[in-house]
Amino acid sequence: MTIAYDGTDFSGWQRQPNVRTVQGTLESILSKVCGEKIRIDGTSRTDAGVHALGQRASFKCGPGIPVEKIPFAVNNIVSETMRDGDVKIIVAEEVSDDFHARFDSKGKKYVYKLRNAVEMPVFLRNYRYRIWKELDVDKMKEAAKHIEGTHDFACFQATGGTPRESTVRTIHRLNIVETKVADGRKGFSTRAEFDSKDIYIEISGDGFLYNMVRIITGTLVDVGLGKIRPEEIKGIIESRDRKLAGHTAPPQGLFLVEIYY
Amino acid sequence: MTIAYDGTDFSGWQRQPNVRTVQGTLESILSKVCGEKIRIDGTSRTDAGVHALGQRASFKCGPGIPVEKIPFAVNNIVSETMRDGDVKIIVAEEVSDDFHARFDSKGKKYVYKLRNAVEMPVFLRNYRYRIWKELDVDKMKEAAKHIEGTHDFACFQATGGTPRESTVRTIHRLNIVETKVADGRKGFSTRAEFDSKDIYIEISGDGFLYNMVRIITGTLVDVGLGKIRPEEIKGIIESRDRKLAGHTAPPQGLFLVEIYY
Repeated sequence: MTIAYDGTDFSGWQRQPNVRTVQGTLESILSKVCGEKIRIDGTSRTDAGVHALGQRASFKCGPGIPVEKIPFAVNNIVSETMRDGDVKIIVAEEVSDDFHARFDSKGKKYVYKLRNAVEMPVFLRNYRYRIWKELDVDKMKEAAKHIEGTHDFACFQATGGTPRESTVRTIHRLNIVETKVADGRKGFSTRAEFDSKDIYIEISGDGFLYNMVRIITGTLVDVGLGKIRPEEIKGIIESRDRKLAGHTAPPQGLFLVEIYY
Repeated sequence: MTIAYDGTDFSGWQRQPNVRTVQGTLESILSKVCGEKIRIDGTSRTDAGVHALGQRASFKCGPGIPVEKIPFAVNNIVSETMRDGDVKIIVAEEVSDDFHARFDSKGKKYVYKLRNAVEMPVFLRNYRYRIWKELDVDKMKEAAKHIEGTHDFACFQATGGTPRESTVRTIHRLNIVETKVADGRKGFSTRAEFDSKDIYIEISGDGFLYNMVRIITGTLVDVGLGKIRPEEIKGIIESRDRKLAGHTAPPQGLFLVEIYY
């Protein structure tokens, strides 16, 4: 299944007792739709508040409902009963019996969305990390070059995740795209001394450590604010020391965009 | 004050006991900021789920905080304590003692946002009314011409609002704008037999009856679906009969854009 969700009202992906999670919600609905107890394996265990456009998950079930009818059946139940449809199955397809959405994935792409502006539209509050002061995007791009490639990324790993055997990962691409945005209303820019913009950090790699994208983003923001110099990044990575890297960006700017197989 | 809010988590504008409303939220924060009990008069008493980009409200207070500091002070309290800032004051300015945001307003502009598509992005669920079947926009535009102007609009008034002396209003402009939208993901368009689009209904007038914009929108949607013919609109207005007009569009597509003085 390919799945999209607005993470705002979910306590993350992973099933937990007594809280609303994406996995828990889908398992409960799929169990009804398929007429048997369903357990699904998601590719990325996104945190509370993190969004997904292209999460993937797989599950096994008996020959009940035809696979192509699953999205419609599930989405209908979601939008009737659950906060107007903040999760939906985009595509469901049959796969070979030994396919596993997580173990078989070859990589992922995330986009982290920053709003660099004095004014923040109310409608974006759950979908952007807003930075008040002007960011030096050229410096951020320079820093990003030091992060691309294969490195031991222990410095960008938060404590608290599943323990990993290795902290070596490959970042295939770390691209920073800026777009000017209109603040939309007269009077908005009275306190602004720079043009408002969206800055998207697109990052793809073979795998990510716990909170890695959010810590990379926070580090790039600290570079943009002049707290870390771009040429320091190499040493920070080599140190393997989380404390030398930047802050952890909040969850609401993070979008899981695609899983590669 | 010029005020923007995301109506999703508010039970409408008007102060009510024990529920979260925009007026109640602002009055409670303004009372703290100004150090005295504040009561505000809003121009439009928007319903639960309706959004605003340019609501206006006025209030009287003593010479405490300078007026230009009010937005910053209030917005800071909102974003720290209330669901990440779903209401904010955009501008506050001093007005003459006899100014009243509602009584002095000369008109309003609303935009109602429709998404005409088989697929609906999860992120738009609180900001669009989605119509599954293809709408005939040319017919909607033809119908809109019959609504513009000065008429007795009793047919577009819901019961339950404040009783009005007259149901005659002037619609200065009823403009329909369509924009093609990308569904964004492969696999999305498998069931679609038409191009997905956003259809914005922009409507400005000297005043609006209870639920009038939502009923006009629902009527235009019914025209777009072929349930009402454009040439029937004139007779529907003349009938003054709510039952002959179309359905009431849901609140989440409605945006209060501007108040005219």
